[in-house]
Amino acid sequence: MIVHPIDYRYGTEQMKRIWSEDSKIKRMIRVEVALLKALARMGYVDETETEEVKKKVLGITPDRVREIENEIKHDIMALVKAITEVAGNSGRFVHFGATSNDIIDTATALQLRDSLKLLEVRIKEVIRHLVRLAEEHRNAVCLGRTHGQAALPTTYGFRFALWASEMGRHYERLKEMEKRILVGQMSGAVGTQAAFGKDGLEIEREVMRILGLKPATISSQIIPRDIYIEYVSFLAAIASTLEKIATNIRLLQRAETAELMEKFEEKQVGSSTMPHKRNPIDSEQICGIARVIRGFVEPMHQSSILWEERDLTNSSAERIILVETSVLTDHILVKMAKVLSTLRLNYENIKRNLEAQKGLNLSETVMIALTKKGIPRQEAHEILRQASLRAYEKNTSLLEALKSDERISKYFSREELESLLQPENYLGTTHERIDAVIAWLRELIDDL
Amino acid sequence: MIVHPIDYRYGTEQMKRIWSEDSKIKRMIRVEVALLKALARMGYVDETETEEVKKKVLGITPDRVREIENEIKHDIMALVKAITEVAGNSGRFVHFGATSNDIIDTATALQLRDSLKLLEVRIKEVIRHLVRLAEEHRNAVCLGRTHGQAALPTTYGFRFALWASEMGRHYERLKEMEKRILVGQMSGAVGTQAAFGKDGLEIEREVMRILGLKPATISSQIIPRDIYIEYVSFLAAIASTLEKIATNIRLLQRAETAELMEKFEEKQVGSSTMPHKRNPIDSEQICGIARVIRGFVEPMHQSSILWEERDLTNSSAERIILVETSVLTDHILVKMAKVLSTLRLNYENIKRNLEAQKGLNLSETVMIALTKKGIPRQEAHEILRQASLRAYEKNTSLLEALKSDERISKYFSREELESLLQPENYLGTTHERIDAVIAWLRELIDDL
Amino acid sequence: MIVHPIDYRYGTEQMKRIWSEDSKIKRMIRVEVALLKALARMGYVDETETEEVKKKVLGITPDRVREIENEIKHDIMALVKAITEVAGNSGRFVHFGATSNDIIDTATALQLRDSLKLLEVRIKEVIRHLVRLAEEHRNAVCLGRTHGQAALPTTYGFRFALWASEMGRHYERLKEMEKRILVGQMSGAVGTQAAFGKDGLEIEREVMRILGLKPATISSQIIPRDIYIEYVSFLAAIASTLEKIATNIRLLQRAETAELMEKFEEKQVGSSTMPHKRNPIDSEQICGIARVIRGFVEPMHQSSILWEERDLTNSSAERIILVETSVLTDHILVKMAKVLSTLRLNYENIKRNLEAQKGLNLSETVMIALTKKGIPRQEAHEILRQASLRAYEKNTSLLEALKSDERISKYFSREELESLLQPENYLGTTHERIDAVIAWLRELIDDL
Amino acid sequence: MIVHPIDYRYGTEQMKRIWSEDSKIKRMIRVEVALLKALARMGYVDETETEEVKKKVLGITPDRVREIENEIKHDIMALVKAITEVAGNSGRFVHFGATSNDIIDTATALQLRDSLKLLEVRIKEVIRHLVRLAEEHRNAVCLGRTHGQAALPTTYGFRFALWASEMGRHYERLKEMEKRILVGQMSGAVGTQAAFGKDGLEIEREVMRILGLKPATISSQIIPRDIYIEYVSFLAAIASTLEKIATNIRLLQRAETAELMEKFEEKQVGSSTMPHKRNPIDSEQICGIARVIRGFVEPMHQSSILWEERDLTNSSAERIILVETSVLTDHILVKMAKVLSTLRLNYENIKRNLEAQKGLNLSETVMIALTKKGIPRQEAHEILRQASLRAYEKNTSLLEALKSDERISKYFSREELESLLQPENYLGTTHERIDAVIAWLRELIDDL
Repeated sequence: MIVHPIDYRYGTEQMKRIWSEDSKIKRMIRVEVALLKALARMGYVDETETEEVKKKVLGITPDRVREIENEIKHDIMALVKAITEVAGNSGRFVHFGATSNDIIDTATALQLRDSLKLLEVRIKEVIRHLVRLAEEHRNAVCLGRTHGQAALPTTYGFRFALWASEMGRHYERLKEMEKRILVGQMSGAVGTQAAFGKDGLEIEREVMRILGLKPATISSQIIPRDIYIEYVSFLAAIASTLEKIATNIRLLQRAETAELMEKFEEKQVGSSTMPHKRNPIDSEQICGIARVIRGFVEPMHQSSILWEERDLTNSSAERIILVETSVLTDHILVKMAKVLSTLRLNYENIKRNLEAQKGLNLSETVMIALTKKGIPRQEAHEILRQASLRAYEKNTSLLEALKSDERISKYFSREELESLLQPENYLGTTHERIDAVIAWLRELIDDL
Repeated sequence: MIVHPIDYRYGTEQMKRIWSEDSKIKRMIRVEVALLKALARMGYVDETETEEVKKKVLGITPDRVREIENEIKHDIMALVKAITEVAGNSGRFVHFGATSNDIIDTATALQLRDSLKLLEVRIKEVIRHLVRLAEEHRNAVCLGRTHGQAALPTTYGFRFALWASEMGRHYERLKEMEKRILVGQMSGAVGTQAAFGKDGLEIEREVMRILGLKPATISSQIIPRDIYIEYVSFLAAIASTLEKIATNIRLLQRAETAELMEKFEEKQVGSSTMPHKRNPIDSEQICGIARVIRGFVEPMHQSSILWEERDLTNSSAERIILVETSVLTDHILVKMAKVLSTLRLNYENIKRNLEAQKGLNLSETVMIALTKKGIPRQEAHEILRQASLRAYEKNTSLLEALKSDERISKYFSREELESLLQPENYLGTTHERIDAVIAWLRELIDDL
Repeated sequence: MIVHPIDYRYGTEQMKRIWSEDSKIKRMIRVEVALLKALARMGYVDETETEEVKKKVLGITPDRVREIENEIKHDIMALVKAITEVAGNSGRFVHFGATSNDIIDTATALQLRDSLKLLEVRIKEVIRHLVRLAEEHRNAVCLGRTHGQAALPTTYGFRFALWASEMGRHYERLKEMEKRILVGQMSGAVGTQAAFGKDGLEIEREVMRILGLKPATISSQIIPRDIYIEYVSFLAAIASTLEKIATNIRLLQRAETAELMEKFEEKQVGSSTMPHKRNPIDSEQICGIARVIRGFVEPMHQSSILWEERDLTNSSAERIILVETSVLTDHILVKMAKVLSTLRLNYENIKRNLEAQKGLNLSETVMIALTKKGIPRQEAHEILRQASLRAYEKNTSLLEALKSDERISKYFSREELESLLQPENYLGTTHERIDAVIAWLRELIDDL
Repeated sequence: MIVHPIDYRYGTEQMKRIWSEDSKIKRMIRVEVALLKALARMGYVDETETEEVKKKVLGITPDRVREIENEIKHDIMALVKAITEVAGNSGRFVHFGATSNDIIDTATALQLRDSLKLLEVRIKEVIRHLVRLAEEHRNAVCLGRTHGQAALPTTYGFRFALWASEMGRHYERLKEMEKRILVGQMSGAVGTQAAFGKDGLEIEREVMRILGLKPATISSQIIPRDIYIEYVSFLAAIASTLEKIATNIRLLQRAETAELMEKFEEKQVGSSTMPHKRNPIDSEQICGIARVIRGFVEPMHQSSILWEERDLTNSSAERIILVETSVLTDHILVKMAKVLSTLRLNYENIKRNLEAQKGLNLSETVMIALTKKGIPRQEAHEILRQASLRAYEKNTSLLEALKSDERISKYFSREELESLLQPENYLGTTHERIDAVIAWLRELIDDL
């Protein structure tokens, strides 16, 4: 009986493989093996024997571990027992000096490492699409909108570049936090490594070296959870950027606007009652799931507020939070890459919507030009305000309204006015800014 | 590959059976059948035929529906096709006049109904245990604590009764919200029931009558989501009460306090390094999961803020939210019932902790008695403040400190003082309040 | 130095007057007076004297209380001292038997009562506007939209009625929760009323009778906070409904859609660069503030999870939460009433947007009609799918595409087709549903 | 009428001065002045004149701006008007080419800069106290606790060092995010800087140079809000660390544990009914306020999800969020510094609680020693489990129970056993870890 949608509907195989129950068990086994090897190098166990043990131990199935757990009701003791069963003489050093969370938290660090690697790939993929779109639609002049209302012209290239810049900052954050997040521990029951005597720090360093992690600066029975807060907060921030992009796609695909469109697959049924509909369902799904992801930020915070050397309130919560946020964030990154890779712009509608403004959205160009001729800004503003009102009321273009205004015609010829009111002449540094973003991203990311 | 903990670790069979993927499909089939029957009663289809169809349709397996969905990528169209396949002549009226969410939201109402029924059972079970504990430990005088510090005495019976009162209010809320939540719709594409012509309201009423639901007062393509907000907010409120109870169990079980204790099962391993530990792991789990549940409240709110007649952002989010909050809330209710059913009070430690205060926590009794003798309150307060300070500094009891104070001894004999400082003599209306709560609960709940 | 926006920008005088610092102090004084009177009726104090005291006490200024608090650093002791100063012989019974939170929580109940009363007025005002709009625009046929895409026609009256139904349920919830929320306590230090001996329950009842509240069923040093959770969750649910309405106004006011418009005041400046803009700034503000309100739900939950007979973590949090959520919710209710009271519908644009669909959104009407003629639903669907595609590709109307389809023309004349494709002929039970909502609301609310 | 607690109760003068309404206006004036100067350097205005204007403009009072705003209902136009009034000939270039949010967002960046500077000071102050406490109580051996239950010994120095490490990571995060957060914009209506023609980038760079900020890589009408999410998420993470520390202080100060204690001021009144109480009220307040701070994370996320070039939903929300989170986080950092600066450890009780375990928490030491003698780990575990059980049941010490066990006595003498069971002999690398944390912090922070 399958209940949760990430077990039948959402999430990629790759991310699920990292966070599945089996995968966690396998990583915990790997940590126990690393401990055995470290102990061997420190002379506790015979090193040659460990190599042999290693092979057997890595062959233990998650099912065997679960079988034992069902009996003794303790997940780590079950793991230890399963390993001891096959470890021969090394058996007595299995889990030696360790506490459950040395294994659990270090295994989680291994999962976080793989998760961050995969997320990095996904983020770069989304950036790549945005950069491509920014370049492709660099000159796609369109109506800018603020408050959902007409504003000065901008370009689609500019919009894509801006979204890319947000994703670029997420990439930057990911790289910065790795050093804090990819840490493990071999710190014993309350963090003192007492069972190892004075060898504790060295054993811990060795285990982490084997696993490719760094040791935590200090930890009690568990690694301080501020690093998980950072991870989940990071996923939430990605979710918000994706929800922002998806919301804008939904807005710009709305029936009357229709400037762009999610690709529609042949076999899809748009609606059970209307055969012609094109719904932005991927973008809608991204929005919905983004909100769910963010809902886990606060529980993660609370899971960090533990009693003394640790309590167990974080355990159940983290089991859910880390798995679900990782799988869902990956899912919407992939979905966004899909949306962007096949996004279609409708240049005709883009032009139609821009022209529907009849130049009213370009009043600033004339206002600025007037100011340059020496008219005080407030006065220029007033002239344009009146002209716009006339145009609006008579349903003519701003150009028409201005031509008949003596305060204007004494400064500008008809041709000058026409040129001033060409949207493509009023794009300022749009292209320079697009280029700057792309240049920055190319510097930031080697293989963009 | 199983990923989510509610698919391998948390949740009861009963609640999962309500919210599983298969279960949703089966309920949707049931709604389609109800629609066919309603259409038959309105004369659209031959009623006798429908009975036969019903049997075949209810035999459709979720696997068949998923098979079709994989092909055509639309869940409800897949359902309709699967039904049409077996519906013979009635086939052309399958899903007639309906929109996807007529089926989805009404099926969800069926799930919510079963979910609320099960939650009601669980809530009553928790209340029963709390009432029993309140009665059993009615006279268990203990140290009251505010700010974690010693305060006047109270009783364990009082504490349990207070917790019971919160659960009682949750029961009351559940009963009140049923009328708003258990509603379905058969409202067509944008809520106008246009496909049914003027029969719409009657068909909707008939479908709901068959299913045992009420029709929504009004709905667009979907039922307004404020009712789901109410449901999830209700689950969150239960979670907070359970987290409060569990937090207090954890506090009162702490090493130095040890007034009560979760039962410890024989086969359990308390710690991999300390064989004598007794950890309140069930209460800890309740706390952790309660926080996760509450994390879904805000995504549910956002899922209600939809565009015009509906958008799809709620769909993915609700798939997760309703399932996960229902399963997890049920899980911690059951866990709490288990904790309470086997909770052990340690009367010896309760007494020890109370006596450790040496009467200092009872200064109010003497203060009140002085006031009754005519001493102004501020003055009485000052006398006791000084006596308490003396006792505290000399590490003697308040009784000793008071006996040597002339301002006291002129009013009270030694015996009177001793009696004043007996905790069980200073319980006020504790018992009346316990009784009042239990009486109220018995009135509220028939079968308590 | 003013820092918080609710102290210089947001919130109505009426709601701020309920929740201001001074107002809290005045209500606490009122509770102390009620206690004195109750003690008088129980024979503790001379009742005639109390009447005189009452006048003096109610004349105490908040400034005097703050003056003392600055000195002794305890708000309630300061209050008690301020009252004792003027209470003459009754002085020694001021605060008798009470604990700080008897005064604080009961004063809060008085604030909640006034707050709920005001909110009720606001909710009714919003409902009144929505009902009026539903009646006024009952026949305003418009394009229905799902996923932001064209759907079957509906009416503006229907939309307003649906929003009204959500507000109606909020009204219902408000009335139901009053009995749980409007409760006070006079329960003493840990809830046992020990200082009152066996008179506790009677004194508490009397105090509450005087204040017009009910006594809490049971309380420790404080009233259980599940009732504050209910209050704040209720405000959050209102916020979501208002954000939903405001979001839809913003969508429908968007440049290309422009079916309705917030009123624009003469003196307002729409934009510093574009004189002709009409921005839905009130609706935007409602959305922004709604989100802030909901952010307080989870802190309120956590404030309910207290240690034993109470801890103080809730105190600072609630000071902020109850004040800010009440003031902000009231603010957006008033703002929404303003928006609705002056909302302008643009019938011309509504018609334009509907006609722009060229009948494609009405394919269902023909499909249904075909089904009634005996064509299997899937086949009818296919015919319409093809016709729609032809119309879409040739940029003609659905009517044109259907006229040339023999499978259609053998069943319907041109006139019949035209009639089928009239939006106002395909509104189903729209009007009945509007009427049903209004009738329900009129039954629910006396003075609608 | 003052309503919000941060206007009468919480927050430091320093932080409020940064975020007050007046302060925002003054910073916006400063941005307008910087724009004038930049325009002067680009030759738009006469530079010498600007210097004179600058003095007059910086003298404008917030009251004057508010006066105009009340009239024209637009905050930035009011600002522009107030400046133009005093700017003489430069007047026509006031606000030239800018949009409202060029001024608002850049002014916010100035506030964020000051805010981060102050927070850095506060964080360092808390770290300093924790480092001092870690050094002072380096050897304070105490009972470790997991699940609130007895565990292996640790030291208070270790606990303080661990808390310091979390604060150290917050310091690291603060320094890393500065480069992303301290950015302004001069980007014009939709981000294209069109009004500046090709001078846009240079003018923007010049304005930012004057103000000591960096220009945003790209911005639309507003700076992308992912940077505010990062700021607020950072404050929330600090809040959680402080709540964790405060929670542990509250736990360790509980009546039966009483290992440490917040300082109690002479004039404070602990309780209106019990003169001897010592309540951890500052730690309780920190917990309460921390939760409120975190409640703003999600509204900040939602404020980032804006429509196209911007909508206004973020405006009201951010006005509240940025102010309130900054003031409250600063408040609890200061409060925590106060708590730590006067925190008292009770060595007597620390020893009492450790000894109360009768060595049972040290079973691991003997278990490890046995393993070193060649006993398999499971067998050693079993021996200790039995001994612990015997000790527990007979209420004797583990030492006694072990002495009579032959399986033990054949390996260890009485003296060896005694030494094994000395807590101070089983601290592992506690001191090395404390030193490592302090060394890392000293490297990280120059002036620690």
